[in-house]
Amino acid sequence: MASHEATKVLRAAGEATIQVSLGSGVTLGDGRFTVIAGPCALENADQVEKSATAVKQAGAHVLRGGAFKPRTSPYAFQGLGEMGLKLLAEQGKRHRMPVISEVMDVSQLSLMMDYVDVLQIGARNMHNFSLLREVAKTQRPVVLKRGFGATLEEWLHAAEYLLDGGNDQVILCERGIRSFDTTLRNTLDLAGMAWVKERSKLPVIVDPSHSTGVRSLVIPMALAAAAAGADGLMVEVHPTPETALCDGPQALTPAMFGSLMQTLPGLLQATGRKLSGYEALTAVGS
Amino acid sequence: MASHEATKVLRAAGEATIQVSLGSGVTLGDGRFTVIAGPCALENADQVEKSATAVKQAGAHVLRGGAFKPRTSPYAFQGLGEMGLKLLAEQGKRHRMPVISEVMDVSQLSLMMDYVDVLQIGARNMHNFSLLREVAKTQRPVVLKRGFGATLEEWLHAAEYLLDGGNDQVILCERGIRSFDTTLRNTLDLAGMAWVKERSKLPVIVDPSHSTGVRSLVIPMALAAAAAGADGLMVEVHPTPETALCDGPQALTPAMFGSLMQTLPGLLQATGRKLSGYEALTAVGS
Amino acid sequence: MASHEATKVLRAAGEATIQVSLGSGVTLGDGRFTVIAGPCALENADQVEKSATAVKQAGAHVLRGGAFKPRTSPYAFQGLGEMGLKLLAEQGKRHRMPVISEVMDVSQLSLMMDYVDVLQIGARNMHNFSLLREVAKTQRPVVLKRGFGATLEEWLHAAEYLLDGGNDQVILCERGIRSFDTTLRNTLDLAGMAWVKERSKLPVIVDPSHSTGVRSLVIPMALAAAAAGADGLMVEVHPTPETALCDGPQALTPAMFGSLMQTLPGLLQATGRKLSGYEALTAVGS
Amino acid sequence: MASHEATKVLRAAGEATIQVSLGSGVTLGDGRFTVIAGPCALENADQVEKSATAVKQAGAHVLRGGAFKPRTSPYAFQGLGEMGLKLLAEQGKRHRMPVISEVMDVSQLSLMMDYVDVLQIGARNMHNFSLLREVAKTQRPVVLKRGFGATLEEWLHAAEYLLDGGNDQVILCERGIRSFDTTLRNTLDLAGMAWVKERSKLPVIVDPSHSTGVRSLVIPMALAAAAAGADGLMVEVHPTPETALCDGPQALTPAMFGSLMQTLPGLLQATGRKLSGYEALTAVGS
Repeated sequence: MASHEATKVLRAAGEATIQVSLGSGVTLGDGRFTVIAGPCALENADQVEKSATAVKQAGAHVLRGGAFKPRTSPYAFQGLGEMGLKLLAEQGKRHRMPVISEVMDVSQLSLMMDYVDVLQIGARNMHNFSLLREVAKTQRPVVLKRGFGATLEEWLHAAEYLLDGGNDQVILCERGIRSFDTTLRNTLDLAGMAWVKERSKLPVIVDPSHSTGVRSLVIPMALAAAAAGADGLMVEVHPTPETALCDGPQALTPAMFGSLMQTLPGLLQATGRKLSGYEALTAVGS
Repeated sequence: MASHEATKVLRAAGEATIQVSLGSGVTLGDGRFTVIAGPCALENADQVEKSATAVKQAGAHVLRGGAFKPRTSPYAFQGLGEMGLKLLAEQGKRHRMPVISEVMDVSQLSLMMDYVDVLQIGARNMHNFSLLREVAKTQRPVVLKRGFGATLEEWLHAAEYLLDGGNDQVILCERGIRSFDTTLRNTLDLAGMAWVKERSKLPVIVDPSHSTGVRSLVIPMALAAAAAGADGLMVEVHPTPETALCDGPQALTPAMFGSLMQTLPGLLQATGRKLSGYEALTAVGS
Repeated sequence: MASHEATKVLRAAGEATIQVSLGSGVTLGDGRFTVIAGPCALENADQVEKSATAVKQAGAHVLRGGAFKPRTSPYAFQGLGEMGLKLLAEQGKRHRMPVISEVMDVSQLSLMMDYVDVLQIGARNMHNFSLLREVAKTQRPVVLKRGFGATLEEWLHAAEYLLDGGNDQVILCERGIRSFDTTLRNTLDLAGMAWVKERSKLPVIVDPSHSTGVRSLVIPMALAAAAAGADGLMVEVHPTPETALCDGPQALTPAMFGSLMQTLPGLLQATGRKLSGYEALTAVGS
Repeated sequence: MASHEATKVLRAAGEATIQVSLGSGVTLGDGRFTVIAGPCALENADQVEKSATAVKQAGAHVLRGGAFKPRTSPYAFQGLGEMGLKLLAEQGKRHRMPVISEVMDVSQLSLMMDYVDVLQIGARNMHNFSLLREVAKTQRPVVLKRGFGATLEEWLHAAEYLLDGGNDQVILCERGIRSFDTTLRNTLDLAGMAWVKERSKLPVIVDPSHSTGVRSLVIPMALAAAAAGADGLMVEVHPTPETALCDGPQALTPAMFGSLMQTLPGLLQATGRKLSGYEALTAVGS
């Protein structure tokens, strides 16, 4: 079995975390804390514009939004497709934020490349080895979500497919796993995140939205992730969560997101870290 | 949420199980018990030939074998590809058995169609909605394995993608889920299988090989599946398990498989059922 | 760690299963299949009498019924206590069946000893090491249920407490574990049962009632357990499940239990086994 | 089912958290953050003395140590018993710290009452309803650990047994649950902790030692717990972890614990909270 080990993702003793350049001057993995925010699904021009403005004003670094949505049921909203990608790219350009969106299938890849700075591989596709191989070839930065049924080792092996394919611009994202307790949507495995950070040289971020599914728990888990050493967050924000077409109950309002962004600098400072771009922002502000 | 329900897969009161025609006169879902057998991975001409001869002689109805292998590690054996499919198709023709193999990706689909009678969607791809949609269009019979992290409802929803896409020739296959107890490879959920059979009109089979990962437990679980009402089995058989390139520890030897096939008729009879093709075989034999 | 291994419960190569004498001539672990049946909770004289008569007529070997009920909520019915034990003992004597009931705490032990032939340690108490030590001292036969959060190794270690305490009259009972899929009450781990039978010399039985929580699945799982090699069953039967004070939805009606008992002999015969006491019964019948 | 709800533990809208007085002026649940620390098992006079001195100097508020150890194997170290309790009480008195130790069984209760200020009910006993009822009668403060196989609702119901028995001096302690990923000892459910804090008026603390089982992850998870809003920590510290008789790999060294205690005030301040007794300490220090 030794020959099947995921070795390219491992952190050698003393080795620094890989820095992933996301575009527009945003780097993830340089020790500072990076925040990716935006709506679960891209719905229409107005919603995308309001979302982007809100998260930018609050200090987010990267804009997220889903154009192709993997849905349990074939009858649920499946996403705007290319129209959504256009809206996302426009807002990213306008606000000078790199944008990220999920690619569900190899066949969507060339289209995605035209619009997004960062590719996301979703939890349901972590084991889609064909997709991993093709995404590796793109050399585009990629966020690899942990499958909700995947062990930590399997997650690292999935990342190994990307590195072995020639792409080391990989960010791992813990988003909760399944356990016998179904009170919440998933069980956020922050200790697993911390274990992966020790073992791998890849930066690791946390999604406190899908992992809980409950708005009031998103900020506590976002702060916990920062305190536990994560390199950043991917968090869902919606201008009007009560009308969201997808996962409204877990979306932060712009006001809640603003509050989170104001709490992060002090919390990070307590553990000797900084929010990405925070110096610049405060310099401008002062 | 009501509008997102998987309704096409449901069994109406008194509705019969859908019969799926696999080719060469083999039907799954007609009340009789059908056995799919063969090696985990297709390795070479000799191994495929010996496997096919062994399972045919013992009374198997369908020949299985993987040409594209989804492997946790990029460094593990990934399968013979088209060469494997050729070997499989040859042996199926020779022994008058329909053949089944796993399709991992949309891009493999047209190639697969040239060689296999039945498509298999593996556990890691149950949530690959793009693949489900494309497989639906083929109208080819398909075995849909349950994801090892998927709920029973999600499994039915994945099947709904196939039926909603116009293909009702769908067989569900329970192959074990993950639980906190990792003594065995997976936790075989036979009660979940029985629950799905009640709720859905699709035939349901059981894979006692992947679910346990331990050779000595395969026959007990195969018999348990038959006693619990499954429509059939998918079981791994290898002429020399100790040399297998993939999952040798869970492969039955031809002798063990023969013993299983001899036990099944009596067991099925005790619950008022029959082994598929058993009348014919015994008629010839008498 | 080697010195902490559970060695007394292990089966040496070729070693026979321990035979546990339950009283009234009933032995569990002699290769034949033994059925323990009765209501979840003892409710009143009429219910106990009807339950006992029904299960005896259908061919059950041991009568079960709970007098002390471990309930998640302090406000749920907690059992009849000693009055229940009296009713149980009376019916056992009347029908010449040994009786079994759960002991929840060391303080109940001397009382239980006056009424029951077999002690049951429930799933929630598998890790109650103080109770295990005291039950060991009684030398009374004991059914040790697997905790729903316990690994197979931990279950064997709990049994080791009993054997190390001087009591080898121990029967293991698989009753389902927790998994991420909560469609059913628990996930019945039949493969785990089969693994334990291989590894340990203790007889192993299966509880298809608590493990599923659904009446229609009890018979399929009971048959599956028999086919997989279990030494017996513990199954809940209630004269009028719709009025049961505890777990009515999983109780078999007397008619369903009768049907199960008629199916078992043929099924067991297909795997070379017999129902306990079946020869006698059929001899009388012929 | 409504009548079986755990209502006494619920938090009414706007209701404050119950304050639990642990002795020696330490209160848990008053908004400040309280730290319980000490060795897993009490081993001998020297180890207890060194542990107590170390945690006191670093600023811990309560001293912990196990005298009766619930061990999976009957052959593992089972604890010093009363001798351990004496050592613990002596050090508590000497350092003016309330002490806590686990009670495994009703029969140990009167002995425990002579030595400890706070009773601990361990994870394996959360469902030991007889023990819960007897502990309720003592009116002594109690830390109720969540069972590693227990849902959040079941944990609240177990606490309801205590409150319904007349004791509201109850502290809940999240210590990790079992999941399919066994890389770490358990899966720490911090979001579950936060959910329970919202729903219940009982204070909730976190055990980052048992939940991870890995020394290097204890501090990240302790900080995460503080950031997520927990009322305190229960953490294992050993003067020489490499010689510990129990759970050495998860014990912090005194130096690591000191570092944790120095990080907590700043982290808590970032979310508007304080370390318990911190004002006094800093006042003395200035």
